[in-house]
Parts: sequence; structure tokens; C-alpha cells
Amino acid sequence: MRNYTTQMDAARRGIVTPEMQAVAKKEYRTEEEIRKLVAEGKVVICANRLHDCLQPNGVGSMLRTKINVNLGVSRDCKDYDVEMRKVMAAVDMGAEAIMDLSSHGDTQPFRRKLTSECPAMIGTVPVYDSVIHYQRDLSTLSAKDFIDVVRLHAEDGVDFVTLHCGITRKTVEQIKRHKRKMNIVSRGGSLVFAWMCMTGEENPFYQYFDEILEICREYDVTISLGDACRPGCLADAGDVCQIEELVRLGELTKRAWEKDVQVMVEGPGHMPLDQIAANMKLQQTVCMGAPFYVLGPLVTDIAPGYDHITSAIGGAIAASAGAAFLCYVTPAEHLALPNLEDVKQGIIASRIAAHAADIAKGIPHARDLDDAMADARRTFDWEKQWACAIDPQTARSIREQRKPENEDSCSMCGKFCAVRSMNKALNGEYIDIL
Amino acid sequence: MRNYTTQMDAARRGIVTPEMQAVAKKEYRTEEEIRKLVAEGKVVICANRLHDCLQPNGVGSMLRTKINVNLGVSRDCKDYDVEMRKVMAAVDMGAEAIMDLSSHGDTQPFRRKLTSECPAMIGTVPVYDSVIHYQRDLSTLSAKDFIDVVRLHAEDGVDFVTLHCGITRKTVEQIKRHKRKMNIVSRGGSLVFAWMCMTGEENPFYQYFDEILEICREYDVTISLGDACRPGCLADAGDVCQIEELVRLGELTKRAWEKDVQVMVEGPGHMPLDQIAANMKLQQTVCMGAPFYVLGPLVTDIAPGYDHITSAIGGAIAASAGAAFLCYVTPAEHLALPNLEDVKQGIIASRIAAHAADIAKGIPHARDLDDAMADARRTFDWEKQWACAIDPQTARSIREQRKPENEDSCSMCGKFCAVRSMNKALNGEYIDIL
Repeated sequence: MRNYTTQMDAARRGIVTPEMQAVAKKEYRTEEEIRKLVAEGKVVICANRLHDCLQPNGVGSMLRTKINVNLGVSRDCKDYDVEMRKVMAAVDMGAEAIMDLSSHGDTQPFRRKLTSECPAMIGTVPVYDSVIHYQRDLSTLSAKDFIDVVRLHAEDGVDFVTLHCGITRKTVEQIKRHKRKMNIVSRGGSLVFAWMCMTGEENPFYQYFDEILEICREYDVTISLGDACRPGCLADAGDVCQIEELVRLGELTKRAWEKDVQVMVEGPGHMPLDQIAANMKLQQTVCMGAPFYVLGPLVTDIAPGYDHITSAIGGAIAASAGAAFLCYVTPAEHLALPNLEDVKQGIIASRIAAHAADIAKGIPHARDLDDAMADARRTFDWEKQWACAIDPQTARSIREQRKPENEDSCSMCGKFCAVRSMNKALNGEYIDIL
Repeated sequence: MRNYTTQMDAARRGIVTPEMQAVAKKEYRTEEEIRKLVAEGKVVICANRLHDCLQPNGVGSMLRTKINVNLGVSRDCKDYDVEMRKVMAAVDMGAEAIMDLSSHGDTQPFRRKLTSECPAMIGTVPVYDSVIHYQRDLSTLSAKDFIDVVRLHAEDGVDFVTLHCGITRKTVEQIKRHKRKMNIVSRGGSLVFAWMCMTGEENPFYQYFDEILEICREYDVTISLGDACRPGCLADAGDVCQIEELVRLGELTKRAWEKDVQVMVEGPGHMPLDQIAANMKLQQTVCMGAPFYVLGPLVTDIAPGYDHITSAIGGAIAASAGAAFLCYVTPAEHLALPNLEDVKQGIIASRIAAHAADIAKGIPHARDLDDAMADARRTFDWEKQWACAIDPQTARSIREQRKPENEDSCSMCGKFCAVRSMNKALNGEYIDIL
């Protein structure tokens, strides 16, 4: 019989949960180290008590950087089984979290399928499911309706929920006055903003935060504090709207921790490269070390079709400077619903960013595969190279499409191969180049 | 009648050349600012006096970051016209420099074609053309043979030459003793090393550096001091071999400057993200501000097939921390000779990295297009978005393959589009989501 509510509650009472044990093992840490970090709020283990098939992961800046993949049933893809195969493919490709952003039909069966079959942590954004769930237009929903959807998701076994608690009626005036270039680009944030504009009422996720905490405490749902005002272009980065909301999120983090509810904080967004590290440090002080979950940051606005690359640059810098969790961005960002190939490209780019950051941060064993790859390259052990590669199939097929004359080189350099020349030179062999 | 030898010579004598004027205009700088930077060696204008069709560019950490594309005739692609079309395509895609790494047949006609038709700066690596040029095996070449090829390239109008001057007989012992994982991965560097091993002689590019300076001074060929010991894997980054060579390159930079010869310095390579900024700063002090030309840096070893991304991450950080010039890396790196699609992907990834860095560095007008893109996104002006995009064709085709229901959204979010909701909310309009 479980004698605690949330992972944080357990940790604070000195209890090492099975989830903490699993995380400790994966991260080469002691159970006591993990317990202490969870107690402090510096690591979250998103694990709804009803998500039985979860293989738990910890999220925190001192752990391996985790990545999230957004999927879900939409008007264009209504087949649960097809979407579920995408989910499992994403998990196979290395996603530790799946956010179900379903926006069509009855969303509950797919959500329940996820929490009963998927081993990754499952997140949702209740505000956009609200419109779908009630099949009523936004302006007709009451504050209670929104909170009821949070409860529904908790009961369905969701591990974390994005809630845009940090914008208030004051934000409405601030956004109007400040005249950002891109206003609000967070989908959930824009719905909350629109609802406030149409009803004249306060943000329910802010006003009824205590009720939300009760729900999250009961099921151990981690709150991912959404950043409605995340910058949607470089020009808006780090402005008063973004930072005011961050301050609100810091206050709300403290309130959640008082009830033993686990918290992540969401962050940018579009941001010039030179601002990223400072922004990560600011979040860490304002939110007292709560894990930072970023979307990007995208370091330029002018590369539609390549935003998996613009966000891999920003994500690598962010994670090395303190972000704990990267939301993937696909090449279709700003343009269209991603297809399966886009999903793959997005996951790989995010994994590269996360991995590069983990090496930079000195996460235990992060560089093991890189070192093995270097040995395999020096010895021309191609099979071992594929075994070390983040995407063995793609690497192998590039080489095999353009076969070299000899196994001890590739068609890029042929006999000019530096590795070949050096192996011969260091062995005292004659080096033929022509 | 030209009354100076090199751009540096002119600058030091107070002469503003037509090339400096052109660079000043492109970079939103005064002619006097550019002249002073060229005089100090902090900016190079690679412009062989025989390269008549050159549209000059400046390379320096305070200017817009430039990118280089490696091409050339090879066993697999022997047709000069086909390769020339690739060159011009690369220039159209934004490459400011083309390095001709031809490794097959008679290389001179293609090299001359480049310097008589291509407006980008043209670079070569004489050491690997030596084997091809003489059609003799490496061990049979004399020191003079190598220097003669440098002269030949200068006479053919080449704007910059990579010369691996910084390794010496001492390096042979160091490499053997230090036991790096990847030894030497620079192609040219490995040939020099191999030649030293086979002949027992000193590196000709080091021993006869003064003769080389005379040639470069005569034609105004910029020396790109090659980094033979650039790290080929994360484990080798910043080791004694790399840094010892960097110190030699600093000494050689000074000797070149004494003869008014322009110098760039080449750099990593594979390097953990957290070492990059420090490495850029170190180069700037050791080489007294000479422009740094980097290959990558690649921030992980385990992503063959995606090294345009690993190097975009490293390149963006490097350029924002002081590198001036990025050599592109394609998805085929470590695997095969890049095809045209690889070349395109490599150029775009490099341009993203360079552009992100330019914004971070505050290069004048660097963010103009990003700001215009943000305005176009807010107003759903898709044609203007394509006009701002780094690759309009790809962006447009992703959107058009998956058409949205309405022009005021895309198929990614449909009616959940935050921009749409915000435009309506700020206009006091009703927001329909269902």
C-alpha cells in the first residue's frame, strides 16, 4: 500500500520510491541523491499513480537531457492505431515523453490507450482539449469546465499537464500596450487569453490554482507551467511580457511545492543565441531550480523548413546552460502538420542537441558512445560505427549508395583518407596515394 | 597602375583599395574602418590580383560570418561543366568561398575556369594537388616540388591556400607519444605527416615558409594556416597536439604579417560544446586576432548522416564566440562523397549557423530579415514569408503539400492557431475554434 501522495511527498518524508530507484539506476546516481533532488524540486519524476506501464524517467538539469514529442489524433489523422504506431516509433527513436495534443473527435480513448500501453511519460494540454471535450465554443466554457478537464486527464493517467497559469488579466493589458511583434504564439496561452478577452474573467488556471493542486497531488500529476508569453520571434525575446510571466511562474512553483506537487517550467521559444544562457540561469534563480522545459529555442526566424536545425542549435545551448527537457521541433514547424519523416527528423535533431549538451555538462557516461565511435573510425570498423550511430540506417545507406573502392576508406576521400594515411604512417608502412 | 602588393600592404600604407570599398559597402562599415582592420590583420580580403571576376568579401570576426563550400573534380565526377554548375549553384545558395579540392586528372583547367568565371573567393590545398599534379607517389616528391605547386596555384589566380605549416618533425614524435584516439584527420595534414615519416625530412611548408611568403606577397594570396592536428573526435579536442600547433600558427601569423601577407587560421574539428567558446578566445589571443576559419566544430561523434546538424550547433557557437569563417559540413561527412542534395543541406545548415551567430554578435542589419519574417507571420502574408526564408522553395512546398482549410492558419494547428486567435482577440472579434 502506497503511503505517500506524490514523488515529492515521498522524497520529503525520506521514502525512496520504486520510480526513484529506477531513475537512480538509469542516471548512475545513488537512490539518496535522486531522493534529495526530488525533495528539493530540482528533479521531477512525472509518474501518474495510474500509469502502470510507465518506465519512469527523471527530469532535471543535472540528469541526462530528456526529449518530448508532440503527437495526437487530428482531423487529418483520426485512426488511433496509426497514431499509436507513430507514438511507439517515437519512443523507439528515443523520446522519453509524448505530449498528446489530440484536437479531433472523442479524445479520451486515445489518451487512455497511451497511459495503458506507452512506457514514455504522457503529457497533455487540458485547455485545448476543453473545447474538443465539450464540443462547445470557447466563450461558452466556464472556469469550472476547464478545471474538470484537468481532473479528467489526471483520472486518465496523464503524467504531466501543461497549464498556462502565469498569465492574468494584467497580461491582457500588457500585451495590448507592449505591442510585441508576435503577441502570443503559445496555442494554449492564446486560448486562455482569448477566453479572458471574450468573458472578461480572470484566468481560471491562475484563479483556481489551489483546486488544481489538489487534483495533481491526488494523482501525482506534474504541472508543467506553460509560458503563454514565450517569444514567437527574436524581436520579442526576453521582453517584459516574457519575464513578468516567468516571475509569476516562480511564485506558482513555490505554491505547488508547498503542496508537494511536482513542477516543471516551460520556456522559449524564439531567442537570439546570445540570450539563451542568461535566460536559462534566470529561470533557475526565479524558479528556484525547478526543471526547465524549452521549445527550441529557435535561434533565427528565417529558416522555415529547417526549424529542427534552428532549434537544435538553441536546444543544445539551452540544455548545456541548465534546461532539462527539450520539446522537439520538426522541419514542418510554422508550415504544416508534421508527417512521419518530419517526426523522425525532429527527434534526431533534438537527440543530437540533448546529447551534445549532456557531454558539455559532464553527465556520467554521456561520452561513452562517442569514444567508441572514434575507436571504430580509426580502425575502419564500419559495423561498430553503425552500432554507435544515432541513426544507423541512414548512416549505412549513405555509405552503401556510394561505395568506395576499398574498405579502408570511404568515397569522400578515397586514398586521400587521413585515417588510412595515418594508420600506415604510424605502422611504418609505405603510403600510396595515387 | 597598382602601387601596392597585398591588401594588407595597401592598408598599412593608408591606401583604400577598390576591394576595401566593396567590403565596406556590404558590411555597413566605413572604408576607413575596413582599411584599419585589414592593416591590423583582423580582416582579410582574399583577392588574388589575377582573379578579375572576384566579388570581394571580407573575413573577420566583426563582419558577417562567411561560409565555404568544398567542391572539385574527382574520379566520380570528372566533367568540368557539371562540377562548374555545382559551384555556381553553391554561390547562388550563399557560399562566399569555394575550395577546389580536385583530386583527379589534370586539375589546372578547372582551377583556371574557377578563377576566370566564379565571383566567390577560391581556395585550394596545394599539398594534395601535388600528388595529382606530378602524378608521382608522395614519397618521391621533393620540398621544392611542393613549393612549386603553391606558385602554380598563385599564378592560376587562387585567392587563398591552405598550407599545413604548423606541424614539424617534433609533431611526428608528439603524435606517436601522445596516442590520440584519431591521430590526424586533416587530409592535407596527414599527407605532410606521411611525407615526413617516409622521407625523414622537415615539413617543407614550415621550412620554406619565407619562400612561400614571397609567392603569396607577389600575387596577394592569403595563407590559410591549416590545422593538421585539429581534433577528429571529442576525446582529442584541446589536447597538447592541437594547442601546440595553434601556438606555431600564432608564430607563423606574425611572420606573415611582417611581409604584409594576409593570414587566416584554421580550427576545429570535433569538440565538446563547452570547450568551443574558450577555444575561439584562445585562438584570438595566440593568433592576435587573425580570422579563425573552422570546420564545424562537430559537437558529437555519433551522428553520421547528420553532421550538417552537429556542425551547425558548433559553428553557431564558434562564430558567436569569434570565428569568422565556417567551412560547410554535409550529411555525407565521414561516409561518402556528397551529392548535390548533400551540398545543399550542408550550405543551408552553415548559413543558419552563420546567421544565428551574426545576430548574436550584433552585426549591423543581421536581424532585419528575421523581423520582416515575424511581421509576415503575424499578418499571414505567406508570399512575404517565402521572400524572407533562407530556402523559399522548401518552405513553400511543405505548406503546399499539406494545404490548410483557411489561409489564416496552417495545417499544423488549424483553427487552434495562436496567431489567428490573437489577431481576433486584439481586434475585439469573436474567436471560433471548433
